[in-house]
Amino acid sequence: MTAITDALRITGPVDLASVSPASTPGFDGRKAEGQRALEAGAERLAELQERLFAESTAGGERAVLLMVQGMDTSGKGGIMRHVVGQVDPQGVRIKAFKAPTEEERSHDFLWRIERELPAPGMIGVFDRSHYEDVLIHRVRGLSAPDVIEERYGRIVEFERGIAERGISLIKVMLHVSFEEQGTRLLERLDRPDKHWKYNPGDIDEREHWDAYMEAYEIAIARTATEQAPWHVVPADRKWYSRLAVRELLLEALERIDPQWPTADFDVAAERARLVGAGGTPAS
Amino acid sequence: MTAITDALRITGPVDLASVSPASTPGFDGRKAEGQRALEAGAERLAELQERLFAESTAGGERAVLLMVQGMDTSGKGGIMRHVVGQVDPQGVRIKAFKAPTEEERSHDFLWRIERELPAPGMIGVFDRSHYEDVLIHRVRGLSAPDVIEERYGRIVEFERGIAERGISLIKVMLHVSFEEQGTRLLERLDRPDKHWKYNPGDIDEREHWDAYMEAYEIAIARTATEQAPWHVVPADRKWYSRLAVRELLLEALERIDPQWPTADFDVAAERARLVGAGGTPAS
Repeated sequence: MTAITDALRITGPVDLASVSPASTPGFDGRKAEGQRALEAGAERLAELQERLFAESTAGGERAVLLMVQGMDTSGKGGIMRHVVGQVDPQGVRIKAFKAPTEEERSHDFLWRIERELPAPGMIGVFDRSHYEDVLIHRVRGLSAPDVIEERYGRIVEFERGIAERGISLIKVMLHVSFEEQGTRLLERLDRPDKHWKYNPGDIDEREHWDAYMEAYEIAIARTATEQAPWHVVPADRKWYSRLAVRELLLEALERIDPQWPTADFDVAAERARLVGAGGTPAS
Repeated sequence: MTAITDALRITGPVDLASVSPASTPGFDGRKAEGQRALEAGAERLAELQERLFAESTAGGERAVLLMVQGMDTSGKGGIMRHVVGQVDPQGVRIKAFKAPTEEERSHDFLWRIERELPAPGMIGVFDRSHYEDVLIHRVRGLSAPDVIEERYGRIVEFERGIAERGISLIKVMLHVSFEEQGTRLLERLDRPDKHWKYNPGDIDEREHWDAYMEAYEIAIARTATEQAPWHVVPADRKWYSRLAVRELLLEALERIDPQWPTADFDVAAERARLVGAGGTPAS
């Protein structure tokens, strides 16, 4: 499945208009095959995650950080449920970054991000991230242009530091089309069990669609590197975006290739202890 | 499936020797049926969890806390993977309580517990809990007898406070047999991919088995109430303990009966906005 991950990797400028949100780069099957492929990889993902965690119990320092950006309705929640949900919940920590609190605003924009970086052995997942500070901040003028300008370089430097700590960063933009977003918002309005997901503010943001796409292009161009590439994942077909993100996670773990730690105790002696004295309660 | 939950509920003293760890109270099927039943309830669990979370976005304050205690190898990890893993990871937060840190030890024993109580709408899961402070502390003499004595009452009071905050507490003891623990520890020794789970200290604890069973009996007798019952879940058959804990979770959610919140916006007006001005990007 490296065809998918190869097809999505971006290490420089990107023209979002040229990436069809309905396309399925690197995968020529349809929905049913996509869903089967998503199921088929679950076991391998689970094994690699367990190895990563096991490694950390013996001092391993490696971790994974999956960062998911995207417009409202682009499917971030579905990624959490259907991709992250494939992993043992003990090995995963999801953090959703909402509008910053007063305390968070009193600090540098990377402060709250730094605090949520995954511990060794863990798969951290960010639902939104430090990129909000160059996306909505740019579109809505929440920060001065020169402040935003400075942030791109700060982000590149920050992500280099993350890599040096042994954290494999996967940067994903779920690329949904304006039309599909309209359809999904309408569905939220038409179904009472979806009303809680609807926020009138979503339409305010929707009216700035082109500005958001431009802000994404600038952010990607300024922060996509060989070491910290972006992945623009077409997201009009949910089955594809889920499969694609799962493949990105799998690829990152395969590259880490975590190993079962070797025993730091004498296996034969422990066996003897267990079969001998440990065979009956002493108290 | 309330047959299972009814059969496991303990509201007073318990004689653990009379509960067979290989039994399957309230369920007369075998492994295959148990596994099917575990699968069959996943969808209902997911719906109720989503409702609980949705309710909280409109100010609902209710939450669930599943607390899992048990000897080493009793299957706590499997509960996390196979039961908690059935739920949308966005709605769950697992906290494993290890030996307390220096900071934690400098506070009251409930301090670190209080900090991890689930937020409204969430399902919190504790892997071990404040009961360690009356279990290992009693068996190993880590606290003076009068201190431990006082803790039972403190726990009852604490759990009453949890309930008053709208948190449904589910207290579980995974009841594995001494023999089955021996088998499972041997398996960990025999498989290199399980060595990382093995700790020579496990056998030290195993040698105090009877003292642990006594400590559990005392803890349960002193803290099992109508409002905060215990559930002693036979755990020699993993398929049963998983099904049983899932049923306890399901029952707690059914009792809460969380509701989809009603829209706090004008649905028709939003529809018009979406189809009208929101139909094309303005920027």
